Amino acid sequence: MKAASVLGVARTMASKPGEAERTRRTSSSSVLEYASLLEGKYGEEGEKLIYKFTDRGGREVALRYDLTIPLSRVVAMYPELPKPFKCYQISPVWRADKPQRGRFREFWQCDADIVGSDSVLADAEIIAVIYHILKALTFTGFTIHINNRKILNGIAQGLGIAEDAVPAVLRIIDKLEQKGIEGVKEEMLEKGLAQTTVNAILELYDNTNGINIDFDYLKERFPNSPSLARGIKELEDMFSCLASLNIDKGNYCFDLSLARGLDYYTGPIFETTVDEPRIGSISGGGRYDNLIGMFNTAPLPATGSSFGLERIITVMEELNLSASGGSASEVLVAIFSPETEHESLSLLSLLRSAGIKAEMYLKQDKMKKQLAYAAGRKIPLVAILGPDEIRQDTVVLRDMSRGEQKTVSRREIVTVIQRELH
Amino acid sequence: MKAASVLGVARTMASKPGEAERTRRTSSSSVLEYASLLEGKYGEEGEKLIYKFTDRGGREVALRYDLTIPLSRVVAMYPELPKPFKCYQISPVWRADKPQRGRFREFWQCDADIVGSDSVLADAEIIAVIYHILKALTFTGFTIHINNRKILNGIAQGLGIAEDAVPAVLRIIDKLEQKGIEGVKEEMLEKGLAQTTVNAILELYDNTNGINIDFDYLKERFPNSPSLARGIKELEDMFSCLASLNIDKGNYCFDLSLARGLDYYTGPIFETTVDEPRIGSISGGGRYDNLIGMFNTAPLPATGSSFGLERIITVMEELNLSASGGSASEVLVAIFSPETEHESLSLLSLLRSAGIKAEMYLKQDKMKKQLAYAAGRKIPLVAILGPDEIRQDTVVLRDMSRGEQKTVSRREIVTVIQRELH
Repeated sequence: MKAASVLGVARTMASKPGEAERTRRTSSSSVLEYASLLEGKYGEEGEKLIYKFTDRGGREVALRYDLTIPLSRVVAMYPELPKPFKCYQISPVWRADKPQRGRFREFWQCDADIVGSDSVLADAEIIAVIYHILKALTFTGFTIHINNRKILNGIAQGLGIAEDAVPAVLRIIDKLEQKGIEGVKEEMLEKGLAQTTVNAILELYDNTNGINIDFDYLKERFPNSPSLARGIKELEDMFSCLASLNIDKGNYCFDLSLARGLDYYTGPIFETTVDEPRIGSISGGGRYDNLIGMFNTAPLPATGSSFGLERIITVMEELNLSASGGSASEVLVAIFSPETEHESLSLLSLLRSAGIKAEMYLKQDKMKKQLAYAAGRKIPLVAILGPDEIRQDTVVLRDMSRGEQKTVSRREIVTVIQRELH
Repeated sequence: MKAASVLGVARTMASKPGEAERTRRTSSSSVLEYASLLEGKYGEEGEKLIYKFTDRGGREVALRYDLTIPLSRVVAMYPELPKPFKCYQISPVWRADKPQRGRFREFWQCDADIVGSDSVLADAEIIAVIYHILKALTFTGFTIHINNRKILNGIAQGLGIAEDAVPAVLRIIDKLEQKGIEGVKEEMLEKGLAQTTVNAILELYDNTNGINIDFDYLKERFPNSPSLARGIKELEDMFSCLASLNIDKGNYCFDLSLARGLDYYTGPIFETTVDEPRIGSISGGGRYDNLIGMFNTAPLPATGSSFGLERIITVMEELNLSASGGSASEVLVAIFSPETEHESLSLLSLLRSAGIKAEMYLKQDKMKKQLAYAAGRKIPLVAILGPDEIRQDTVVLRDMSRGEQKTVSRREIVTVIQRELH
């Protein structure tokens, strides 16, 4: 484990280490937060799912609902963090939900965020993170849906929807895929929107109406909305960044029906779906330029995205994807006999000090079993030191994939292994 | 982020992903456990510090107290996990304690464990992990104290202490440094130990009595204890492994006063102290061969150790140690002007696809500021693409530590950067 990575975790998660004490004293830990900190951030339905309880000291606390609010709180608390502050977190979050397929009370989110940049370059970088992670996990049929809250706000303005009704409308639109067009229509009318407005909204989203909803169509339809124009300009810039970053055009698209349920998004928003299985989105995120400012500090622009780890694993299992390379070890040092154990340990130490990832078989065993262990864990090389080799100052090095072995002088073993591995 | 490492986390922490649902249904998550699972494992005083509460469903749950019990539960639940199962975890744990210097309600533990090996090789590997992590963090004055519960049990037998009184005696001895010899004596008498037994115990621990308490002394003093003989043999074997592993003899020692408070240890135990500042131990662990068997499964030998992350950071700050190498980025791709931004993005994509850790400066800015950013984050190389370079298909590569720059052809840029970095 690299020192830097240990400290990296601490710096991100436990905030500024030097002030850990102050942080903890104010009870501003990252898993457990004051319930009041989380309340009012996740919309009406999210609010009900906050995992709250009263602790022994009578404090109303809650297990974190996502990783974005705790990150925002930490960034707001430590304005001296250098900007842009980029971080990733892989950690559990909690929802007081009824467990069901693909939905757990405790589940893991993998977040990547860039705080302190208002550039679409930062949004494009987040899309690149999503794309490259899914590629590394050998995903093929996936689509990153992209929209912009500024566009949605612009449309709402253009249709005469009152500003304070917009979040509710967006949350309803967000359910389009789940509820269908009739269900959404009904809910909008219930919320008191005028019939003509509802019709205008739904016309935009009716897949059967044959209109190609692209940037040009929207600009023409809502020519007087600065918010919409700005939103489209951002996405155009972003898409051109994505092209320069060699992100495959087949893996992202503009999708006007993407709204994202949470209230705090302000700009580009994104969500990833897979062609199969039908499991909902596997990533979601967007720009949240006003959130950090809510924690009694100067506003700070930010953008980021979150993966649902369990959903990704479900998809990988159902599609039989395998991204695991087996053990991290590059060399297994075998034990030939009790007498040679200590020579093997010395070799292990030599390899490790040269930066080679080496592990030792942990007991006396038949050589066949030791080789099977290496094969089972996909460890590419096995080093064997018998009495002959010790006498001759050599090592037998076995290439597991080719099933071949050769005798190498001890003096050259590090160089030979490094060559074999690269 | 490597796919394997994402899955690695899931596999370790969320147990077997394919059965995540079953796991979750039984509420066996890793942060939140049934309170009953944690109770009876941490001794009388630990028990009081378990962070318990009643959740919305009326269940008695608790935030995990350490990482060892949850790991043991997961390993017991998934006997099909290949053995030896080696894992590390860097995660928060909770104690319902009064926060004070170096002691927080939520703090981070860094654990390394080997499950399924009863060999002292495994214990030696854990010591090697501790040693190499501290070396990588540039620690110098540290001592890994090593003892063996079998030796302590052998002594207790030899002194006629009833078997069921031994854990309590060990917990008292564990407070020797904190309470002093008189305090410990008093507590033992209170617990009902005979005066002669207490005297015999304390004679062993009285630093002023001039006896050199080494393996030979103990063997001679307690010749009839098989437990003591076995414990000493284990440590002798282990110390000889440590020598073969080139672990500096100055950084570890046999320490008979080390007892470890927890009841579950069965063999070698270890704890690390630093010469300064006075902060208590920064790591603690040992062999726990009977713990996993407590979870309704066949017994499985295991050994491991835990670091306290906040304490390590405190020590590093007080001693002004710096192990952080700054940013993980190897190359900063600068932005020369708005017109060249997309060429810079293409270069970024090229470098990343060659496995080079590259980041882009995220806005139009003076070149001086961009170089200062790289210097501040210790990014070793900066790549600059101006209109001239784009025309000539070259890149300006600046070595930040030497303050020199050269023009490299685009075709060779990956090779040149890889050479510069290694």
